[in-house]
Amino acid sequence: MIIRIDLQSETPIYLQLSNQIIENMANGNLKPGEEVPSIRSLAADLGINIHTVNKAYSLLKQKGLLTMHNSRGIVATRSHTEEDEKNMSSVKKALRPIIAESICYGFANIQLKKIVDELYKDIKGGKINE
Amino acid sequence: MIIRIDLQSETPIYLQLSNQIIENMANGNLKPGEEVPSIRSLAADLGINIHTVNKAYSLLKQKGLLTMHNSRGIVATRSHTEEDEKNMSSVKKALRPIIAESICYGFANIQLKKIVDELYKDIKGGKINE
Repeated sequence: MIIRIDLQSETPIYLQLSNQIIENMANGNLKPGEEVPSIRSLAADLGINIHTVNKAYSLLKQKGLLTMHNSRGIVATRSHTEEDEKNMSSVKKALRPIIAESICYGFANIQLKKIVDELYKDIKGGKINE
Repeated sequence: MIIRIDLQSETPIYLQLSNQIIENMANGNLKPGEEVPSIRSLAADLGINIHTVNKAYSLLKQKGLLTMHNSRGIVATRSHTEEDEKNMSSVKKALRPIIAESICYGFANIQLKKIVDELYKDIKGGKINE
């Protein structure tokens, strides 16, 4: 798993971290069932606060993408199909303000869908961005 | 302009407010050049803190969607074409983690583009959501 944290970025560190873990899951670097580093060791590796890692992991648990296992530590989870509706609604809620903003910038629907295409392929291809 | 604030929502109030102003601009309820309420009066109308409104307006100024006019107060602004590249890059940066998350949920590219389609039409049609 490749994690890059930009301390100069305007994006809060816990969000950068959770976004990067999500990217690693999306591009297959981190597979369902695989263990992620413990909070303590990841904090030490990245030179960031334990509470920041904890906040990122909590967010991912809330999204159903990380699960606590008593014997195996914290593992990546593939969301269950029966949660599709909940996941879909959370994706729509997150997309809505960005699409509204794009409309304000004068971007056409087709331009937006082209961006989605590019990003989808880029992420699947394993390119890591912030 | 229709603004609905949900005090129970997990989304911070300043973000709800800026998202709703953006939606009003996207659906044409708030047109470029039109004045938005003063910070003080909007805070009073919505029963929220002046600092919260100020934070929302500052975010929108930063995005180039609100401008301070000496004589006309704060007005909605249509972003200039020469800023397209900056706007596009900010839209991509915002979209990327949501698309990565959708991939983790197992959503296909075509499903995502269908959602974009629906939301684009919904927003243009003037339906207001949080």
